Amino acid sequence: MRLTAHTDYALRVLIYAAVEPASLCTIERISEAYGISRNHLMKVVQRLGDYGFLETVRGRGGGLKLAMPASKICVGDVVRKMEDDLAQAECFRPEQNSCVITSACGLKHALSTALEAYLDALDQFTLADVTRNRKALSRLLDLDPAA
Amino acid sequence: MRLTAHTDYALRVLIYAAVEPASLCTIERISEAYGISRNHLMKVVQRLGDYGFLETVRGRGGGLKLAMPASKICVGDVVRKMEDDLAQAECFRPEQNSCVITSACGLKHALSTALEAYLDALDQFTLADVTRNRKALSRLLDLDPAA
Repeated sequence: MRLTAHTDYALRVLIYAAVEPASLCTIERISEAYGISRNHLMKVVQRLGDYGFLETVRGRGGGLKLAMPASKICVGDVVRKMEDDLAQAECFRPEQNSCVITSACGLKHALSTALEAYLDALDQFTLADVTRNRKALSRLLDLDPAA
Repeated sequence: MRLTAHTDYALRVLIYAAVEPASLCTIERISEAYGISRNHLMKVVQRLGDYGFLETVRGRGGGLKLAMPASKICVGDVVRKMEDDLAQAECFRPEQNSCVITSACGLKHALSTALEAYLDALDQFTLADVTRNRKALSRLLDLDPAA
């Protein structure tokens, strides 16, 4: 039931960008603030850009920012897009499934229903909701609290 | 978002026992039916016994059976008990957490809420529900369909 590191980092990048909406954020600063390797963050930022959550500006003086207001980004959407694999058990992956009872078993339906409930619940939270303590987050991330 | 192998196997063992309520099941037969190693199953069966889902009878002619009717066993309960770790991100494990924003971040609350929704949804399904196709399950598990 653990989110992948990529999903975790993606949420942290979005939180950082939501706390600092006035200026472009850099991967270097985000890396320092969280103590996460730049390499990991570069991949995550690339994907967040591809999915339309971030806008990136290349080159000197470049950086990243949210592609839309934080109140428009649902946590559930980010998790849906970032988790490559929402398969909870073998039977969710037909090509790797060796469970002999799959065709008659009701568990897959139960697990799918529960996963939908999980994602629906996450959709009730936007990036604005989870960054409501902006001042404190700004301080913890070593951002200028006046920004 | 994947269940551990132990949770997956636990659910399979319970399904097997639910399909064959009239007699004691053996780990050997369950191991053959699913192609899962006996060693893994022994650990899983031990835990299912400890949690009160299975009754086990030791010795020659011994085996296992459900400790209560399948309609009384909620899938959510099995998952809650078998998943050692329902931590979805670092911040759920205070002793290993290195995320600097934990004290001000709203994400943990969102993820906790979603996890509850997931488990609540699973609680709507009993072992009886997921083994409703008993005849077909019995055939797929190589059990006597007349049993």
